[in-house]
Amino acid sequence: MLTMTSALERAARVYGSRPAIIDSEATYSWSEFVDRIARAAAMLKNLGVGPGDTYGIVSPNTFRYYEMIHAGYWLGAIPVPINMRLAPPEVEYILENANCKILALGHGFEQLARDPALLPWSDKLLYIGKSPGEVSWPQYDQLIADATPLPPCNAGEEDDALLLYTGGTTGRSKGVRLTHLNIVSNGLQVGLAMRARVDDNYLHAAPMFHAADLLGTCYTLTGGAHSFLPAFSGANFLKAVQDYGVTKVMLAPTMIIMTLQEKGFDDYDFSSLRLLFYGSSPMDAEWTKRAMEKFTGVEIEQGYGLTETSPILTTLDPEEHRVAIETGETDILRSAGRPLAGVDMKILDEDGNEVPVNGTGEVVVRGPNVSKGYLNRPEETASAFRNGWFHTGDVGRLDENGYLFVQDRKKDMIVTGGENVYTTEVEAALYQHPDVHEAAVVGVPDEKYGEALFAVIVPAPGKTLTEQQIIDHCRGRIGNYKIPRKMAFVDAMPKSAMGKILKTELRKTYGGSEKIIAAAR
Amino acid sequence: MLTMTSALERAARVYGSRPAIIDSEATYSWSEFVDRIARAAAMLKNLGVGPGDTYGIVSPNTFRYYEMIHAGYWLGAIPVPINMRLAPPEVEYILENANCKILALGHGFEQLARDPALLPWSDKLLYIGKSPGEVSWPQYDQLIADATPLPPCNAGEEDDALLLYTGGTTGRSKGVRLTHLNIVSNGLQVGLAMRARVDDNYLHAAPMFHAADLLGTCYTLTGGAHSFLPAFSGANFLKAVQDYGVTKVMLAPTMIIMTLQEKGFDDYDFSSLRLLFYGSSPMDAEWTKRAMEKFTGVEIEQGYGLTETSPILTTLDPEEHRVAIETGETDILRSAGRPLAGVDMKILDEDGNEVPVNGTGEVVVRGPNVSKGYLNRPEETASAFRNGWFHTGDVGRLDENGYLFVQDRKKDMIVTGGENVYTTEVEAALYQHPDVHEAAVVGVPDEKYGEALFAVIVPAPGKTLTEQQIIDHCRGRIGNYKIPRKMAFVDAMPKSAMGKILKTELRKTYGGSEKIIAAAR
Repeated sequence: MLTMTSALERAARVYGSRPAIIDSEATYSWSEFVDRIARAAAMLKNLGVGPGDTYGIVSPNTFRYYEMIHAGYWLGAIPVPINMRLAPPEVEYILENANCKILALGHGFEQLARDPALLPWSDKLLYIGKSPGEVSWPQYDQLIADATPLPPCNAGEEDDALLLYTGGTTGRSKGVRLTHLNIVSNGLQVGLAMRARVDDNYLHAAPMFHAADLLGTCYTLTGGAHSFLPAFSGANFLKAVQDYGVTKVMLAPTMIIMTLQEKGFDDYDFSSLRLLFYGSSPMDAEWTKRAMEKFTGVEIEQGYGLTETSPILTTLDPEEHRVAIETGETDILRSAGRPLAGVDMKILDEDGNEVPVNGTGEVVVRGPNVSKGYLNRPEETASAFRNGWFHTGDVGRLDENGYLFVQDRKKDMIVTGGENVYTTEVEAALYQHPDVHEAAVVGVPDEKYGEALFAVIVPAPGKTLTEQQIIDHCRGRIGNYKIPRKMAFVDAMPKSAMGKILKTELRKTYGGSEKIIAAAR
Repeated sequence: MLTMTSALERAARVYGSRPAIIDSEATYSWSEFVDRIARAAAMLKNLGVGPGDTYGIVSPNTFRYYEMIHAGYWLGAIPVPINMRLAPPEVEYILENANCKILALGHGFEQLARDPALLPWSDKLLYIGKSPGEVSWPQYDQLIADATPLPPCNAGEEDDALLLYTGGTTGRSKGVRLTHLNIVSNGLQVGLAMRARVDDNYLHAAPMFHAADLLGTCYTLTGGAHSFLPAFSGANFLKAVQDYGVTKVMLAPTMIIMTLQEKGFDDYDFSSLRLLFYGSSPMDAEWTKRAMEKFTGVEIEQGYGLTETSPILTTLDPEEHRVAIETGETDILRSAGRPLAGVDMKILDEDGNEVPVNGTGEVVVRGPNVSKGYLNRPEETASAFRNGWFHTGDVGRLDENGYLFVQDRKKDMIVTGGENVYTTEVEAALYQHPDVHEAAVVGVPDEKYGEALFAVIVPAPGKTLTEQQIIDHCRGRIGNYKIPRKMAFVDAMPKSAMGKILKTELRKTYGGSEKIIAAAR
């Protein structure tokens, strides 16, 4: 059956002696790891979490986090991974909304236990860090060792397996219900697209509370291993690849750029790496090229998806990246790629009619990986999941070759003095300055040109930069009209949980006019 | 959605310019091939085949056969590929039983049109050979060209897509209903196991009326190409690999052995070949070794399944073959491998209870690739599909590492004078004689030894052999007790449609006592 419970039973039986976890703290075979999962399920049950119940997790990426999620699949309970950047009242909202029985806290989140907002949860805490966070807390590994392994539950494909709260800067976040079928189907679909193999080792580098972490599922299906990166930096990432023999990873483009800028890049051995998968936004051609040059022999692939789609819908494949860079025909790199096997996708106009090829409208999808809906939100569920199709809210177009271009990304284009400027191109030029750590370009209103380029720059540590230095640097690298004349130097960028720079925030701060994209709902 | 209709729409859109068909007669891109399918669907409709209707096909392997099957998926009608070795009354039985609207005949089957048993079908025939079989028959390619392409039907995942009649030497054959979900799910599962890629070219070498032909589905899902072999011989196969650039193929072990014995083997270029997948029975270690030696750089993989499971349930992977041959620990090659992702498998005793690890009993399975049941056979359906599990009727055991050993294969072991002799080992020795074309060994009753070895041998064309020559040849190659003392020289072996030697028939002919394996139903 297409359930995670079945997938784990199979992994223990078929890949029993092969590595499941390759981590700094521990290495477990699949039979050992599934035994730990069965014990963790018993522990959850002892703590009052029964089949069908939910429980929250706030933790950095560790194998214990993965174990806690899988213990739910094994028990028939529903894990609720929570964004670790949320404020305590937001965490409390999710715990209440999802009706969680307990809250599991990982290393570094001990202070949440003492936060007034979480006072009602003080006797429902489980610490899943390595060593006890407080003297009085039970030691997780001891609890696992003491537990009697539970047999797997008889989960059905249509049973809820996971509850993921979507970001949402406007309004309160919604709990997206993902079933066993959703997760395993996308595992099969993504497994084909990522060419998952038994000897792969997947690094969980992006935050595990994010739906993108489900990309790891296919490696459980093919008997590969999992490694974990608790805190991202270019150096940490390269060291993890080297130490654990990582073969595949999913990163946000900013993470790739950070890694390429890492001073000690050449000191690391990344010969095990086969595939660099990136998501959450397209990557500039210049950076794609550099990634190919520096990560010799590593394939590059893009994916697009949503929490509601478990998560991947489309991929832009390694071959397409290679050809784009080799031929210089890089427009394709602005695409999100093409639908996975089993994903149906169409573009609807405001009346709900399919638009012709290359027409723009709302992206709607259906497939085995599409969620049933939101927890306790019948109206929003009915609105988004209509006539058998999930209405993504994203505006885009499908071209004659089936490539999806997510229109939202057109925000990255600025029209200044009648010229179209792609901000990613300007950013690529800025990044070439040795003292530029991070850069983002937005459009701001301008009397003369209609719109002007505004650069926000984080200088490298200990460095200072002037406007004139930046302008001089850009000269010769990009056309004159593409050079920003207005700019701000800041200490840090506003970012999403995935590490994506929030240009919306930058536009608000620096007086840019937010272009409103009319979504169909 | 997991439907073939959706898979075809996607293939046309996503892989439009990539090759779909690479054949001696024609080469079509995915957009051209799907256009032809949409026209073939219109042609079927013009001939009175509507959505939900069935139609029969008797043909050798050609792209037109594949087109006719896919036209059904596109239209929502149900193709019924029929075993081309059946006698006309058996064909007529299936057409009646399935309530077919028309019968499509391929090249070489023109005489069926004139057979008295098929007289009622004389005005419901469609000829799908290259050139007209009879002057009065319409030309297929002209019909396709003249048709107006139909839009794809809105098939549901649970809709019947294909009806395959299972062999059955006892009793009349049953129509196995396979849904769109069954076929596409196994496509995803097999795609992972066969590591399907966009640049693969799959050769349809085994007869296309057999469920094994569904192995090709995964290449449609990944945008690979299809090639076709109308008549199997070692030379034909090698030539097809060379001419079409075949990368992957499924063969029965006898086909592989025939190919390895092909005199002109070294004259062909098979450098495109990546994977030799075999099924329907295990292959002797000696032949596996030879295949590895002669097919340099080609991976070898085994699969086991049934028509009712669309068809693959387990695979024994390339790495396992390699290790077995390298270490000489070849017992594993008698296994059928381990369950695919999404396949649940257990072994039940006669009371329907699960047996302990390594216990023997009936193999039962469940998964998205398992059929709903038999057409118009409610009792047999209820008996085989019980409590959510399909009861295969095969007797086997699962070992501690999840390997399935299909017990039926124990028939291949003979106990003579208290010694166990694997007939495959004896056969491997016989095949080493240059004048042995085919060989099979069965057990026959013996007063002195309880059971004795009986060899049935087809000499090479133009050669004659004596019993003494065979005995002399075996001496030194295998233990004395393993040398057959009784034998028969024949012109041809009785074989199944998959080209598997029917030992059951040999035992009947040569007085062997058929060992009855008690199946749970």
